[in-house]
Amino acid sequence: MKYQNPKGTVDFYPKDMMERNAIFNKLRDTAVKYNYKEVESPAFESLKLLTAKSGDEIKEQIFVLEKKGKEEFGLRFDLTVPVARMFVEKQKSLTKPAKWFYLTRMWRYEQPQSGRLREFYQFGVEVFGSAKPEADAEVINLAIDSLMSLGLKEDDFVVKINNRKLIQGILTQIVGKEKLDKVLRAIDKKGKLSEKEFIEELEKTKMGLAQVEEVRDILEIEKIEDFSKLKLNKEAFEGLEELKGVLEFIYFKELVKISLSTVRGLAYYTGTVFEIFDQGGKFRSICGGGRYDKMIEQFGGQPEPATGFAIGYSTLYLLLAEKDCLPVVELCPDYFVAYATKDVKQAAFDICRKLREKYVVEIDLTDKNLKNQFNYANKIGAKKVIVVGPDELKENKVNIKDMKTGAQETIAIDKL
Amino acid sequence: MKYQNPKGTVDFYPKDMMERNAIFNKLRDTAVKYNYKEVESPAFESLKLLTAKSGDEIKEQIFVLEKKGKEEFGLRFDLTVPVARMFVEKQKSLTKPAKWFYLTRMWRYEQPQSGRLREFYQFGVEVFGSAKPEADAEVINLAIDSLMSLGLKEDDFVVKINNRKLIQGILTQIVGKEKLDKVLRAIDKKGKLSEKEFIEELEKTKMGLAQVEEVRDILEIEKIEDFSKLKLNKEAFEGLEELKGVLEFIYFKELVKISLSTVRGLAYYTGTVFEIFDQGGKFRSICGGGRYDKMIEQFGGQPEPATGFAIGYSTLYLLLAEKDCLPVVELCPDYFVAYATKDVKQAAFDICRKLREKYVVEIDLTDKNLKNQFNYANKIGAKKVIVVGPDELKENKVNIKDMKTGAQETIAIDKL
Repeated sequence: MKYQNPKGTVDFYPKDMMERNAIFNKLRDTAVKYNYKEVESPAFESLKLLTAKSGDEIKEQIFVLEKKGKEEFGLRFDLTVPVARMFVEKQKSLTKPAKWFYLTRMWRYEQPQSGRLREFYQFGVEVFGSAKPEADAEVINLAIDSLMSLGLKEDDFVVKINNRKLIQGILTQIVGKEKLDKVLRAIDKKGKLSEKEFIEELEKTKMGLAQVEEVRDILEIEKIEDFSKLKLNKEAFEGLEELKGVLEFIYFKELVKISLSTVRGLAYYTGTVFEIFDQGGKFRSICGGGRYDKMIEQFGGQPEPATGFAIGYSTLYLLLAEKDCLPVVELCPDYFVAYATKDVKQAAFDICRKLREKYVVEIDLTDKNLKNQFNYANKIGAKKVIVVGPDELKENKVNIKDMKTGAQETIAIDKL
Repeated sequence: MKYQNPKGTVDFYPKDMMERNAIFNKLRDTAVKYNYKEVESPAFESLKLLTAKSGDEIKEQIFVLEKKGKEEFGLRFDLTVPVARMFVEKQKSLTKPAKWFYLTRMWRYEQPQSGRLREFYQFGVEVFGSAKPEADAEVINLAIDSLMSLGLKEDDFVVKINNRKLIQGILTQIVGKEKLDKVLRAIDKKGKLSEKEFIEELEKTKMGLAQVEEVRDILEIEKIEDFSKLKLNKEAFEGLEELKGVLEFIYFKELVKISLSTVRGLAYYTGTVFEIFDQGGKFRSICGGGRYDKMIEQFGGQPEPATGFAIGYSTLYLLLAEKDCLPVVELCPDYFVAYATKDVKQAAFDICRKLREKYVVEIDLTDKNLKNQFNYANKIGAKKVIVVGPDELKENKVNIKDMKTGAQETIAIDKL
């Protein structure tokens, strides 16, 4: 019987893994430069934590573990929840703001599609302990710098930014508090709907036609100045001030577009929200993030403002591939050490040992003759082949062949 | 309500994670030098695969996922099984031997103890496609080199080596084929038993007293020469030849001790088996490995010999801590960029951006005054503080303070 990897999961073979490591190292390096520290949490958490503040859709997507002891556990579906739990546990002793990042995987039971898997990897950051727009701006800058570090260009992607207080404040004025959630939900779907379908969605909330028009007009606003035409309530005004504050500290102003229809679900966002898309709109969102000032309190901590983002690896990979930005990985060893006869095999092994202090070195493990060793060296793309022969060995020398140029030389072993 | 991480799991906070990354990077680097390639498999696999060839004890330890679709899944309890599955899927197209390594985590439902967790990390390698002792010797060399790369010394640990054919062949001669498994099981427990308890364990297999003595004598053998006194059957003779072959290619001969009581359970080993212990015998085994020539076939592949090892992170960490070999990690940023007044805050952010091309840089995200920014810079151990002030900024200059020496200077921004 043959076995396969589970549906919606990926096996990382050597080349995949080298690419992932190269990409992760760039992302890690960018986060470190911003003085963010990497953290990691267990793959599973108590089901109580995972379901405490999650929407119904996510609850259904949790992989639950069969009960072994008293407590119930499930696989984490994001890292914000476990990392927030970790923060709460050490909230008193930690220096604030705590700036953390992660590069790891999580699980959701969903219908697998391009860029959406049941086991998926994310790079994400969380800042706990700043309510200021500077913190939101920093995470947006970091998200953009991360993408840039991988070779993506300014015209490869676009950042859509909004503020939940701003949109909620404005909508409350138009449709009233009781319809707010329904309208937000409709707006959240907007990207996936035609104009006609979107209007139908709005009409389902039973708002009047004039209000539908008003909402549609509002969602078109792209410039800060245009808000001056509106009479904003306190909540909306606060949101607008925050949005202005964030924009002030963003390095890549030309990349960032105000987008009032970007609301990021109903989950836990309380202020700034943003998403990054490829410029061509070909893939699903590459990055999503925002401010969630209530979660720490809800998880049993002292009130603490928080903001962050997550970049999904599989969509990122698709975009990098399309833009010809995948890292070039080195699969070929520097040296292959061959032995001409079996009585010098041990000597050949000893030469490997020395070379491996600096180089990537392969040696035959299957007792091949010299000709087959050369064939193998060729097959694996060894850059140079060292041949250990009994005569040369007596003089402490070996032959080296450059497999690209074909050039050969005999050199002393201690010159290697 | 407060939440905790599940029992038997570990949260990696920044310092833990930096240590782990530093240790993993050394291990990865060693494997790469031997031209092994990293791979990664999904966290869960079909339960059929996981239980196909596993002992009953392991089956009970599998975390099973509640059924969502038709198939049943469980969290992987080791990496050898998933990696063997990955090999089988590409067996035809892969260049053999395939030399793979992994640095990742797995899960077992066990009683948590020192060095044993429910979620645990391992570094391991597998070689598919060589039946020769050179391959076993290479993985043992690689295991030892990995430990050495972390600063452990030759007298910090010991490698116990055996060959399953050798011990099985000898035991079969003494106790007969039908008692073999029982006796092996008793021998496998030897390390955890007193001499008296071990004899009782052997007696339970209903062998005679003379045989008990004979088995005990055999297990004392530590030198290859001592086997010449025994009359070996074909299986034992083959095992002895393999053992000699492995020892020939091991770089660290003084570290490796023949230990016929090292059998590594009844699971899947078919030839060489080995374990690494700290010299003081304080911790559980740091590394275990050996040859498993039947697994690929059992998983639906063509017959293919295989050998490998795994090093557990938590025991390794305990040993590194004891031997004062934990990596020194850098938690402090190179620069903290402070702003003297709010109107130069944006300029300070821009200076950060430039510095981050090379350095780890932190800036205030919570709108502190200058004094509190300095306090914060001190708290996080910033090496240097750059102060952006309105007057200096007009001349494109900033002040830099070395937080260690206290030395201050004013320099041009483009000289930073």
